[in-house]
Amino acid sequence: MVNLSEVTTHLQNDIPIIRAMGIELVAWDGLRVAVAAPLAPNQNHADTAFGGSIATVGIVAGYALLYLIFLERQISTRILIQKSATDYLRPIDEDMTATATVTDAAMLEEFLETMKRKRRARMEIESRIICRNATAATHRGLFVAMVY
Amino acid sequence: MVNLSEVTTHLQNDIPIIRAMGIELVAWDGLRVAVAAPLAPNQNHADTAFGGSIATVGIVAGYALLYLIFLERQISTRILIQKSATDYLRPIDEDMTATATVTDAAMLEEFLETMKRKRRARMEIESRIICRNATAATHRGLFVAMVY
Repeated sequence: MVNLSEVTTHLQNDIPIIRAMGIELVAWDGLRVAVAAPLAPNQNHADTAFGGSIATVGIVAGYALLYLIFLERQISTRILIQKSATDYLRPIDEDMTATATVTDAAMLEEFLETMKRKRRARMEIESRIICRNATAATHRGLFVAMVY
Repeated sequence: MVNLSEVTTHLQNDIPIIRAMGIELVAWDGLRVAVAAPLAPNQNHADTAFGGSIATVGIVAGYALLYLIFLERQISTRILIQKSATDYLRPIDEDMTATATVTDAAMLEEFLETMKRKRRARMEIESRIICRNATAATHRGLFVAMVY
């Protein structure tokens, strides 16, 4: 069983800006992760969320999805991001949540199989950044994981 | 004459995460801006720069370019980002600098003309994130500016 509060502390210790942004893992069901971030530390000049924070929350959701997949399977890996793309759809004027989901179980199996065979594999992960129950931004990340 | 240290303080007050990341404006010549960020607050689990920080430094360089263009012309605007895309090319294991440049003076004039006519205009700005004299990441941002 994964303890999300422990994983949050671990990520915040590893990556101090995650702590500065107040990003926390709040839900995980084996295929879908949710991370939350408060508005205050992530505000911009217009009292909405800053674009850099929104992109980062999207990246962290994708990173956390892979991190938890490997943690549950006790595979020790290094995860890096190769490409990140954010579309900003509407202003975020409240706390935000980002979710990242394995939409295709077969793709996950193939990814894990490639990891076993080649010791590295790539996966594109989409995150949705939600505020007031509406999608306010989307993020696509291309991640590479390497057996460590 | 623009005082970069004053502009840095202003941006850091408006957007607290810019202060948390230690991002500062370090050069401006009317067509090209450079922003710098130290590694320490932006580190990841592998003691290189975190992808979220790198994307943010690219965004801030693009934002700062527009901000300074308008400041010099005393045009009061609101600047928002609509799309952000980062390509990570190599690990950043030292302080980084990001530059954003007006490569086409005619395009800038057209942009300012559109601002006058329609009170809003869009511009794509590319930033280069440099570490140890090599390009370590590139960022493309689509920004929209509105007369305020």
